[in-house]
Amino acid sequence: MRILLIHSDYLKYKTRSKTRIAEKIDDEKKKGEFKDSLVVFTAVEKEDEKNPEGVVENAILEIKDILAKVGAKNVVIYPYAHLSSSLSSPDAAKKILQDMESRLDELDIPVGRAPFGWYKSFEVSCKGHPLSELSRTITAEKPEKKEEKPEEEKS
Amino acid sequence: MRILLIHSDYLKYKTRSKTRIAEKIDDEKKKGEFKDSLVVFTAVEKEDEKNPEGVVENAILEIKDILAKVGAKNVVIYPYAHLSSSLSSPDAAKKILQDMESRLDELDIPVGRAPFGWYKSFEVSCKGHPLSELSRTITAEKPEKKEEKPEEEKS
Ligand SMILES: [Mg+2]
Repeated sequence: MRILLIHSDYLKYKTRSKTRIAEKIDDEKKKGEFKDSLVVFTAVEKEDEKNPEGVVENAILEIKDILAKVGAKNVVIYPYAHLSSSLSSPDAAKKILQDMESRLDELDIPVGRAPFGWYKSFEVSCKGHPLSELSRTITAEKPEKKEEKPEEEKS
Repeated sequence: MRILLIHSDYLKYKTRSKTRIAEKIDDEKKKGEFKDSLVVFTAVEKEDEKNPEGVVENAILEIKDILAKVGAKNVVIYPYAHLSSSLSSPDAAKKILQDMESRLDELDIPVGRAPFGWYKSFEVSCKGHPLSELSRTITAEKPEKKEEKPEEEKS
């Protein structure tokens, strides 16, 4: 799993059109707006299908850790296929994204999730402090695999 | 080179703090605002150092092609290390990003570029039509290497 975490003043999205395997959603999920959030753009990868529970658990550890550091009020899980060129099946991705949402909810962390498999318009801000944009590769094996870019390569 | 292309109603950025190898910039480059743009989030990769001219040329071909399809008014080159885990040296990245800007300018395509090596706050919108979010891997060898996600995996 590849994730890009953005500490954001706001994220808004609106569904525009379905793809063939669009997640079935209620009308109220067709748009969303979240303030002061850690937005977790997420690409579920083929590799993750071997041990989805392990990947979800390690993703949650990482998200909790960063959430504590940046002090955002909410987490938003946002499916983002463009972060990987080795994607899982759509069904595996949907399940993992939903499980991430459930786990955060169980931990009483306010969480939203944008629907999978829809073309969406969105608006997002990034606060711009040094921890406001981070990316990680999450595996089932290790609690977390740091992939901090050297400072000089950040941009 | 990995690029993520977003057809955007607006992109705004503001520099917040320097990293050690921040590009030297004039005050007017410390913030920027662009309307109706194709924003090209760009990670220059180690591989690109072998033939930077070839990579730039192929990136420009790809950008021109997508620009014509979506009909945006401007291109904005936005350095984005988080798209790759195999980054080039910062110097190679700066040179390639600057060359992309120059090439587009030579072609009379209105182009902006966000500075390299700064922490920046930003706000961006994505229009949400099917071509408004695309990602590509650009190499020096081929004019373009399509990496379209299957429709069902888009999200
Ligand atoms: Mg950046």
